[in-house]
Amino acid sequence: MGAGNAVQNAALGEEIVRRVNELAAISEDGDKLTRVFLTKELRAASDVILGWMREAGMSAHLDAIGNVCGRYEGERPGAPCLMLGSHYDTVRDAGKWDGPLGVITAIACVADLNRRGKRLSFAIEVVGFADEEGVRFASTLLGSRAMAGTFDASALNARDRDGVSMRDALIQFGLDPDHIGAAARARRELLAYLELHIEQGPVLEARNLPVGVVTAIAGATRLAARLTGMAGHAGTVPMALRRDALTGAAECIGAIEQFCRTDEGGLVGTVGYIQARPGATNVIPGEVSFTIDMRAPTDMHRKRAVADVVRQIEAIAKRRHLALQLDVTHENRTVPCAPWLKDQIAQAIAAEGFAAFELPSGAGHDGMAMIDIADVGMIFVRCRGGISHHPDEHVELADADAGARVVLRVIEHFKPPAS
Amino acid sequence: MGAGNAVQNAALGEEIVRRVNELAAISEDGDKLTRVFLTKELRAASDVILGWMREAGMSAHLDAIGNVCGRYEGERPGAPCLMLGSHYDTVRDAGKWDGPLGVITAIACVADLNRRGKRLSFAIEVVGFADEEGVRFASTLLGSRAMAGTFDASALNARDRDGVSMRDALIQFGLDPDHIGAAARARRELLAYLELHIEQGPVLEARNLPVGVVTAIAGATRLAARLTGMAGHAGTVPMALRRDALTGAAECIGAIEQFCRTDEGGLVGTVGYIQARPGATNVIPGEVSFTIDMRAPTDMHRKRAVADVVRQIEAIAKRRHLALQLDVTHENRTVPCAPWLKDQIAQAIAAEGFAAFELPSGAGHDGMAMIDIADVGMIFVRCRGGISHHPDEHVELADADAGARVVLRVIEHFKPPAS
Repeated sequence: MGAGNAVQNAALGEEIVRRVNELAAISEDGDKLTRVFLTKELRAASDVILGWMREAGMSAHLDAIGNVCGRYEGERPGAPCLMLGSHYDTVRDAGKWDGPLGVITAIACVADLNRRGKRLSFAIEVVGFADEEGVRFASTLLGSRAMAGTFDASALNARDRDGVSMRDALIQFGLDPDHIGAAARARRELLAYLELHIEQGPVLEARNLPVGVVTAIAGATRLAARLTGMAGHAGTVPMALRRDALTGAAECIGAIEQFCRTDEGGLVGTVGYIQARPGATNVIPGEVSFTIDMRAPTDMHRKRAVADVVRQIEAIAKRRHLALQLDVTHENRTVPCAPWLKDQIAQAIAAEGFAAFELPSGAGHDGMAMIDIADVGMIFVRCRGGISHHPDEHVELADADAGARVVLRVIEHFKPPAS
Repeated sequence: MGAGNAVQNAALGEEIVRRVNELAAISEDGDKLTRVFLTKELRAASDVILGWMREAGMSAHLDAIGNVCGRYEGERPGAPCLMLGSHYDTVRDAGKWDGPLGVITAIACVADLNRRGKRLSFAIEVVGFADEEGVRFASTLLGSRAMAGTFDASALNARDRDGVSMRDALIQFGLDPDHIGAAARARRELLAYLELHIEQGPVLEARNLPVGVVTAIAGATRLAARLTGMAGHAGTVPMALRRDALTGAAECIGAIEQFCRTDEGGLVGTVGYIQARPGATNVIPGEVSFTIDMRAPTDMHRKRAVADVVRQIEAIAKRRHLALQLDVTHENRTVPCAPWLKDQIAQAIAAEGFAAFELPSGAGHDGMAMIDIADVGMIFVRCRGGISHHPDEHVELADADAGARVVLRVIEHFKPPAS
């Protein structure tokens, strides 16, 4: 690769950062970034993105669920596509990189090909999914599920916090709730789904690497635990006669941490919420509720770990004479990235001069839905301090640039698997 | 003691239970018992108690803070008194025994002496303190502090939840806020202060004993702790890179429990309140606040234990790279019961045929204020399941009766210490 090419790509990086900032200005909150499903702000953002797509030489349209879709034909029109994408909705009070970086980078790469008049033996499609975060209707991956043909029509009855149903919101957005099926794509149309996204964690930063190869989108199991002992006066009940639900919960939290820390396969376990009742300084807690979130790079690993943690919690509750209620409230399968895609991503990263470091994604992504119609690959870009879902979310220009160079190289060297 | 006497005392027990129920009917809530400082319900209760006192042969009046005071003269009028008492205010949604049992038992004992025409070499006074619980103005022991001459006049500016100041409430009650000093008594007027109260804990029940000798009213130290780490995504931050404030707090809670459990001197430690922020299932807690309540039968013991627990928490925070803020929010000295009074109580209990079991009081009582003008003795009566400050609070008739017999025996065999 010559110097001229490197300069050209640095320019792409600058364009990406400029567009990330431009999109971040479209928000329903004046000073915060909030852009959720089927709002007029999402509509305004879709118009901007469709414009960028067309400018990059793509045909572009809004699909039946509100995804922005652009297509850059290959040498032969109508060929199957390599689909690139991410989402363009945000959480409330969001960072500006989570989602848009992947959509904007993909468009920038196509624009680069287009400027050079380069066509490939396959088409490229770029998609910006309309609802990955699931903020408005408390149901994630609505955009990619519709594209994968797995949209659950019962979700149309879900209501947002103002009481507006998804059905009505679709109509107000200009879409037909009875034709969401039109967004579905067939497996034969896609060669692969490739997503670039910020890591949302601190691993690449700790390794001093701008990009990484995602091995899998980790599945998650969430549990709700409730321990019930006996409330009592903090001064009058001797330690030996207590059935303190909070000291029991503390032992469970310690056991979960210890179990995950000693695992060497990427297992993580988190207690994020806890409440002790009655919750007064001078009363022994009689009841404690807490949540457990467990993730691992494979389903088998996660399920074995959950079973082990459940056994430990049951033993703690029994030994302490506490009643235990433990329920699985949520479960997501692990989505492995396709080995052949990981290889091509790793080669592109190495060719750009970086170590091709592999890491799992602990957060969920649209690939979790797209796996039903395509092999999935993901590239992570370093973000500062691992911070995400927060206004402090930040990606360095050089890293945005590195991510774009890797995606462009994957595209130009892309080889579908021998089928 | 003859059979006639035993029957007579059983009758006292029945009268005590009847009067506890009668007083419990005076409440500001229809179906719950709530009777707080300076309300019309407290006034109504004071009238009932003053009537019982006069019926028992006492002169009786409401003092300058609203305490009910009755006096049964000894053989020589104007002699120093043995003061018996407890409080007649309640918490909200209270049990009916906490406080009233001690006041009503004392009156029943005096009534028994009066029926027998018995005068002693000293006077007996019975007091029902107007505010031990401190519910209305968030300041405890107001009645006994006024009697001990340690009432803090700045409390007059405190306001209840409706915005009424204590000053105005006193005036509405018919008292003069500028003359609370008139409630103060001098040390020379009192030979001792003796209180019977329900245990509010499970120790006597576990020992199968109706009554016990209190060794001390345990002091308490309360601390507020805040651990600050780094919030993060539950899926994307590997265990080794976390600074989880909740796993840190859990380790602290475990250490406090372990430290108190292995203490053999009656130390208790309680974490009653905890909050993890941001408090979402899928977010590593970045900040956790919790309270610590520690009590022991001596101040030295408690202070040493608090210092040790603080050292352990500091070490845990340091090892986990968590910032720690730890503040003492409240501290009460320990009030030891006078050995000579403990001896006389123990002799009376033994004479009634029970083991004279000694135990500390983990809860606070009016003796904490009365210690400033008199030696303090306390008798505990068993309550069911150790439950208190709850409608389920319960004392068996036989135990109320046993308590009354012990108090009566202490009175009749009372010997002031050689001074």
